[in-house]
Amino acid sequence: MKTLADAFTHTLQDVYYAEHRLTDALATAAKATRHGALKKALIDHQAETHEHIALLKKVFKSVGEKASGEKCDAIDGLIKECEGVIEEASAPALNAALIGCCQAIEHYEIARYGTLREWAKVLGHQEAHDLLGQILDQEKAANHKLTNLAVTSVNN
Amino acid sequence: MKTLADAFTHTLQDVYYAEHRLTDALATAAKATRHGALKKALIDHQAETHEHIALLKKVFKSVGEKASGEKCDAIDGLIKECEGVIEEASAPALNAALIGCCQAIEHYEIARYGTLREWAKVLGHQEAHDLLGQILDQEKAANHKLTNLAVTSVNN
Repeated sequence: MKTLADAFTHTLQDVYYAEHRLTDALATAAKATRHGALKKALIDHQAETHEHIALLKKVFKSVGEKASGEKCDAIDGLIKECEGVIEEASAPALNAALIGCCQAIEHYEIARYGTLREWAKVLGHQEAHDLLGQILDQEKAANHKLTNLAVTSVNN
Repeated sequence: MKTLADAFTHTLQDVYYAEHRLTDALATAAKATRHGALKKALIDHQAETHEHIALLKKVFKSVGEKASGEKCDAIDGLIKECEGVIEEASAPALNAALIGCCQAIEHYEIARYGTLREWAKVLGHQEAHDLLGQILDQEKAANHKLTNLAVTSVNN
């Protein structure tokens, strides 16, 4: 990795890998809870994750690269933390802690897509910039939904 | 982990471990870059990390618990990603990618302290709530500083 373009491609491969891992991780998390609204939120976000993979394929294409993933230690660690909660916790701690872990994952994605969108702008990749902005907005909305769920019906 | 109080203690131990790991990780990151302003930002944030450890000790005390850390897979993964960048990248990609990884770490902390602060409120731990809010604000400020640095002097 020498140039900003290299860093952009590398990080794009990281999030492509991350979104693939998340489709399974969100399904596992949804199965683990009996809280109806939380289960629905996790299943809905899993569907969005499939959309993000489709959008990322467009981003790769728009910059003339083949879509591919690269093992990303950060998302592996974040998912491992989530799996630990499923293993060790029971309700009501399970639901609150599950939301906490999922929000940590959302924040990871918010950080990465924010960086990627900014880099796309600097590199003059307008289409990639717009697509990445679209994913970023959905991740922020997903995070807000989880906050609302925690505050209104899980923590109390 | 059965109750919200259990989840609170467990997550507090996670961030206590995370802050300790970060003091070393930030020193390594600061050493890796020759970009003066970035090096300074990383060293400054390392100093804040020591403050956060002191504040977390007060949080543990305020809820009648002994300060202790517990291995946290998420921060281990995020730091491993940062170490990978230091190993594989050279400037200018190094500086941009280093900021990206550090912002992912900041976002992890923002997510965790946001959750902990909210849980402290629900559990009636007013002092812990205020202390955690203080750390949360510093993490948000650190993240903004990194964004400004990226946009004004690193990416271009």
